[in-house]
Amino acid sequence: MRATVMFGAGDVRIEDVPDAAIVEPTDALIRVTRACICGSDLHPYHQMERSETGTRMGHEAIGVVEDIGADVQSLKPGDLVVMPFAYSDGTCEFCREGLPTACVHVGFFGNPGTDGAQAEAVRVPYADGTLFKLPVGEDDALMPSLLTLSDVMGTGRHAAVAAKVGPGKSVAVVGDGAVGLCGVIAARRLGAEQIIIMGRHDDRIALAREFGATDVVRERGEEAVERVRGLTGGFGVHSVLECVGYAQAMETAIGVARPGGAVGRVGVPQDETIPASLPAFFGNVTVGGGPAPVRAYVEELLPDVLEGRIEPGRVLDRTVGLDGVPDGYRAMDDREAIKVMVRP
Amino acid sequence: MRATVMFGAGDVRIEDVPDAAIVEPTDALIRVTRACICGSDLHPYHQMERSETGTRMGHEAIGVVEDIGADVQSLKPGDLVVMPFAYSDGTCEFCREGLPTACVHVGFFGNPGTDGAQAEAVRVPYADGTLFKLPVGEDDALMPSLLTLSDVMGTGRHAAVAAKVGPGKSVAVVGDGAVGLCGVIAARRLGAEQIIIMGRHDDRIALAREFGATDVVRERGEEAVERVRGLTGGFGVHSVLECVGYAQAMETAIGVARPGGAVGRVGVPQDETIPASLPAFFGNVTVGGGPAPVRAYVEELLPDVLEGRIEPGRVLDRTVGLDGVPDGYRAMDDREAIKVMVRP
Repeated sequence: MRATVMFGAGDVRIEDVPDAAIVEPTDALIRVTRACICGSDLHPYHQMERSETGTRMGHEAIGVVEDIGADVQSLKPGDLVVMPFAYSDGTCEFCREGLPTACVHVGFFGNPGTDGAQAEAVRVPYADGTLFKLPVGEDDALMPSLLTLSDVMGTGRHAAVAAKVGPGKSVAVVGDGAVGLCGVIAARRLGAEQIIIMGRHDDRIALAREFGATDVVRERGEEAVERVRGLTGGFGVHSVLECVGYAQAMETAIGVARPGGAVGRVGVPQDETIPASLPAFFGNVTVGGGPAPVRAYVEELLPDVLEGRIEPGRVLDRTVGLDGVPDGYRAMDDREAIKVMVRP
Repeated sequence: MRATVMFGAGDVRIEDVPDAAIVEPTDALIRVTRACICGSDLHPYHQMERSETGTRMGHEAIGVVEDIGADVQSLKPGDLVVMPFAYSDGTCEFCREGLPTACVHVGFFGNPGTDGAQAEAVRVPYADGTLFKLPVGEDDALMPSLLTLSDVMGTGRHAAVAAKVGPGKSVAVVGDGAVGLCGVIAARRLGAEQIIIMGRHDDRIALAREFGATDVVRERGEEAVERVRGLTGGFGVHSVLECVGYAQAMETAIGVARPGGAVGRVGVPQDETIPASLPAFFGNVTVGGGPAPVRAYVEELLPDVLEGRIEPGRVLDRTVGLDGVPDGYRAMDDREAIKVMVRP
């Protein structure tokens, strides 16, 4: 089958690889109908060391179940499913507590030993726990929004939950990428009154406004902090969604948090330490978040997608076939596209 | 009047200073009946640069109101009051939200421009908001425990609240100083099932056990993390109370937290950054806490002290007069005493 393989920074190729196949009795095999390129795929795109064997790419998918292992109970061939970026058994104590990204059997698609989703097919471990059956056909018009339930919409929600967004709260979203934009949707959905998008790309900011952002801050660093304080009576916001992962973004996030506020971080941290320890401490600002338990959020978010109350699929502003994936990486890296959908 | 003044690292003296007096109409003047030396006083005791004028020391007190400004409503001369380490107006939005340490008029006793509590008397700004009237006489046997409501018991509670301690939870307390020991009391009071004290001083550990600690871990660093995991089914604890403030303590705290767990930090951070960003992120571990809103906790904790359900005053294991204060610093620094009470 054909799959996306990265061999080093900037070197993404579509290769012929061995067909995905059932290995464990708890596996399912899915034929990928939609996948996408993630902002986090750009980290290895910038800095991956050259590799002869390469790394399979992609961790977000919707697909049709083609085959199941002997122990799979809840799925059958022909089912259309959404595949979260992490697999999880669905039965361990962490899965039961709603944190499948800490499952005792957790694994992340695209890591060594797993298939990547930017491909014709994927072997899905712990299929019963991992996959969520969708009640629509494989070419439904809602496909882009449903696809975001595999990562960015759930991740935006996780940032909002970790930042303790609630009715009447003021919120800042650091980062106007796909996750930040989904964070705006999530914040509004949770009842936030004021939502400040912090970013500087006109097209993304326009979308953020349509999703519910009430204010825009284009500045960075100390200037941005001053601007947010100016918009919030001098004290900052109750909740900050840190959707970038760089130290400067976290420093800004802590800087714009109101005393007693919370920062929810979902951008994969690119540093060993969290900056601004003293401001966070003296402001009693909480820093939480991590890999989003998107599998646990699907049930909550799905009705809003199906009934059109939220449209996170609008962040997918370009569609390519498998052959177009390498250029999709380039387009995202050049900020030509917010997020690229793949139809293998 | 006589007051404690620090002139440099290790140089604590009792000096004659101008009498404390009412300055603002919202002030009260209290005659100090009990004060104490704080673990945080040891930071300047180790590293303060030499100063000709020196710094007034002490921020925890019980005293008798001697005089009040024209605008003070809720107090009268003769009232016995507990004085939290921070003053606050009691009326701003942060005070109303239960975070008086973020009061728009907040100040900390012993900082420049304020009196210190290791003295015969103290001018208390915003007396109505700051002071809490006690329903006992000034030499009541409960005085040590009541005195801890000015800082360490409220701070231990804050660590537990920030660490999301609740019924049935597993808890680790990093640090066996007075705050850590009060953290054990707070964790038990909030219903924790397992409380692991992490420290290595026999006397303190014995007290921690009496306060409700169920397990002891004397190791440090990676060994400590392994031991706590071994005591908790391999995963770590739900809640960690970080009561030290050094980077190694925070690294340990994050290391012993279970995925989805929370660290409540109340030790004043001695570093610019929070370590272990990646383990915290990948474990979805929350880091919260800061200067404890002890004024807001007095009402909650007082009945338990008055009715003898908690005895935080047992951390005060030595009593000195004002002249004994310099040796009290030495005794705490040498770990001869857990915490020293001062009777001016």
